[in-house]
Amino acid sequence: MSDDSDDHGNRDRDEESDDLEAVLTTVRDRVDPDADERGRLREVADRLTERAEAAATDRCADADVILVGSTARGTWTSGDRDIDVFVRFPPDLDRETLEEYGLAVGHATLPEGHEEYAEHPYVKGTVEGFDVDVVPCFRLESATEIQSAVDRTPFHNQYLRERLDDDLAADVRLTKQFLRGIGSYGSDLRTRGFSGFLTELLVCEYGGFRELLEAAREWHPQIELDPEDHGRETFGDPLVVVDPTDPERNVAAVCSEENVARLQHYAREFLEDPSVDYFDPVDPEPLTESELQNHLERRETTPIAVRFDAPNLVEDQLYPQLEKSIEGITSGLDDRGFKVFRGTAIADDAAVIFVELAVSELPAVERHEGPPVHVRGHAEGFYDAYTDDPDAYGPFIEGGRYVTERDREFTTAREFLESDRLFDVGLGAHIETALESDYEVLVEDEVTALLEEFGRELRQYFEPSPRR
Amino acid sequence: MSDDSDDHGNRDRDEESDDLEAVLTTVRDRVDPDADERGRLREVADRLTERAEAAATDRCADADVILVGSTARGTWTSGDRDIDVFVRFPPDLDRETLEEYGLAVGHATLPEGHEEYAEHPYVKGTVEGFDVDVVPCFRLESATEIQSAVDRTPFHNQYLRERLDDDLAADVRLTKQFLRGIGSYGSDLRTRGFSGFLTELLVCEYGGFRELLEAAREWHPQIELDPEDHGRETFGDPLVVVDPTDPERNVAAVCSEENVARLQHYAREFLEDPSVDYFDPVDPEPLTESELQNHLERRETTPIAVRFDAPNLVEDQLYPQLEKSIEGITSGLDDRGFKVFRGTAIADDAAVIFVELAVSELPAVERHEGPPVHVRGHAEGFYDAYTDDPDAYGPFIEGGRYVTERDREFTTAREFLESDRLFDVGLGAHIETALESDYEVLVEDEVTALLEEFGRELRQYFEPSPRR
Repeated sequence: MSDDSDDHGNRDRDEESDDLEAVLTTVRDRVDPDADERGRLREVADRLTERAEAAATDRCADADVILVGSTARGTWTSGDRDIDVFVRFPPDLDRETLEEYGLAVGHATLPEGHEEYAEHPYVKGTVEGFDVDVVPCFRLESATEIQSAVDRTPFHNQYLRERLDDDLAADVRLTKQFLRGIGSYGSDLRTRGFSGFLTELLVCEYGGFRELLEAAREWHPQIELDPEDHGRETFGDPLVVVDPTDPERNVAAVCSEENVARLQHYAREFLEDPSVDYFDPVDPEPLTESELQNHLERRETTPIAVRFDAPNLVEDQLYPQLEKSIEGITSGLDDRGFKVFRGTAIADDAAVIFVELAVSELPAVERHEGPPVHVRGHAEGFYDAYTDDPDAYGPFIEGGRYVTERDREFTTAREFLESDRLFDVGLGAHIETALESDYEVLVEDEVTALLEEFGRELRQYFEPSPRR
Repeated sequence: MSDDSDDHGNRDRDEESDDLEAVLTTVRDRVDPDADERGRLREVADRLTERAEAAATDRCADADVILVGSTARGTWTSGDRDIDVFVRFPPDLDRETLEEYGLAVGHATLPEGHEEYAEHPYVKGTVEGFDVDVVPCFRLESATEIQSAVDRTPFHNQYLRERLDDDLAADVRLTKQFLRGIGSYGSDLRTRGFSGFLTELLVCEYGGFRELLEAAREWHPQIELDPEDHGRETFGDPLVVVDPTDPERNVAAVCSEENVARLQHYAREFLEDPSVDYFDPVDPEPLTESELQNHLERRETTPIAVRFDAPNLVEDQLYPQLEKSIEGITSGLDDRGFKVFRGTAIADDAAVIFVELAVSELPAVERHEGPPVHVRGHAEGFYDAYTDDPDAYGPFIEGGRYVTERDREFTTAREFLESDRLFDVGLGAHIETALESDYEVLVEDEVTALLEEFGRELRQYFEPSPRR
């Protein structure tokens, strides 16, 4: 019996493995850059490195140039076009000179480039279809001496180059594509998912793509990994991966609980029933007007949207403000008795705070509890105020307190959203400014006006799945 | 300046006192029994006492008879018709014999009487318009030896007789009438107010009607009085008056927070602006149909009533069960998202749980939160169940948990109240039985059907005041 069932178990596992390997072979075929793509990248990268080196050593004999990022480590997936050129200057250079040299080297390397600003200014440009950043930094002995985040990048690069062999690099590519497919790739503040560096560390730590998924399937947050076993801090994040070059930093700090759960969910789904589908990002068709109508009739909620011109911000600034705004508006509605069922904030040229309400209309009166009758001064003031108010019911006594029923300020959610009291809720600063300039409130059927610009987002909203 | 304002203050106080005294004179005139009434009472009471004594000593040479209650202490208000005759037997008599003798004496004293049952059986009857109870009890040395509540009554009677002079007795009458006027007189479980004994103790303790009101005006619950300074227990009630004959008993245990607050409120109102009105119980006109319609249109709430045949119970059993039932129904509605605004339970031949809803209709879908994704067994079970359910939205992931949106069981409060799930909420036992037999649910305009039987109660509900 036990032999039989072992055999059976092994056969099942072998079949699964075959399925899984077949799927991975298909995906590798798609995501592994071929010799041609690798050659073209190397050619451009070498040329840029040489140009940068010449321009850098012209200015500072001690400067050097390194390639960093996924294209430098062989972990990029076919079609990625990012080349990151880091120009390192000695640490005794003052910051101002570093910035001056950095920009000069950048312009020499990318004559068509333009300046952007992160922690330092740097030059960005396009060369033969590749998106190239030329970034200055200090060359330090140890990552603990870093002066800004970019100084850490060469250490990250060094750490991973020492650990990623060709097999692991290939598994990093699979993992990145899997995370893209489920909507969890990227540490931008819209996604709050897994950064490239975090993905590479996880694959190194668990020893491969499949090994990572097998571990993730069983995760119990908080999950803590500390590759260099040097962590000294306590982190509150669901996933903690202590930076191998900085014991005080969690590489996964930005990764949300949702994305940890999403990876866990799809690790289970994929290992249970492997399919290439999981590696394809969802690209929903826009929701049609009749589909929207069907959902609204089916759900019997009251949809309501606040639409305004999106403030001109990068996504990493815009999305946190949109999130703060939808939280504020949700609280503002809930506090007034309008119950929010679910909602989402979306932005393109326009931005929309979209919520469905379970309760959108309320009685003309609201209960207003006064002080306990024994708190004499307050109690008498309250009683006198409302006993003389012809519009108020009561005061009467309940549980030792005065209670009155007075006119409710807003009997519909629309009235509240169209009033100045909307500005009493917590809104992102730039969202508040945008709303002060102009906004419109769309209720029930009026929300069909959103379909033209946000049909895809509305399909995702009305057909929710673990994927994003 | 200070002399002037002192004078002025005195003059105000004097005028107030004059007003107050004038009011009290009017009320005394009404509540003090005249010589004729006192004479008739004495005559009947003496005759009953003699009859009871003869019948008691016939059976037990050691028995004696005492009059107790307000008519025995001169604290009854004109028109009260209660005569309480207590027949005391020696404590070595066994209980069975006590009950046998007690009933025999009762029937001998009240030939037309009938038996009732409190802690012992006793005989009740009517003699020349007076309601007479003949109650057997043990004659004990001290109140600490009592075997049942009736044994305590002679000690209460003795205690008050020693302390109530004519002036205090007159002030007890005023106080009782004041408490009647504001709706707080009586320790029955419908009123949960001030019992006669409690009222007499309070007047004794504070030294009069006005003194009681002046103290009550400043009360800060918990208020604790311990006339004999022998309390050893800690009580949780808002008003504590330790029984002078039993250190472990709070005479005010049944007195609700509302009634304490109500006395406090009207103490302030009355002392501020004395008027005989406060001594007149409210007797509202029935609410008319057009008035009810006006209130409903004004308030924009949704009234809903559960009407059924009142179970055949004494009020002290019925009202606690009605209260439990309205609390259970309120929780049942609130838990399902139907928000109760205010409500009341009323009973006569029919009984009604009447509530106004702020929210009476909800969407077809409800949010249903599943387990955290990391709780693997539960999480997979939840996901599999709902992902295959064509009527459910999702599951999707929020805050690390699976969430689905599924059909709501009840989208209207009426559906819930008309369903068997009504019996899942906490209902009084006899109310549950009554509802099992039959009930009807009235919504919105249908509640006008209640006006015929409960017009007075509905006026009190829709025109709430501190008074009751």
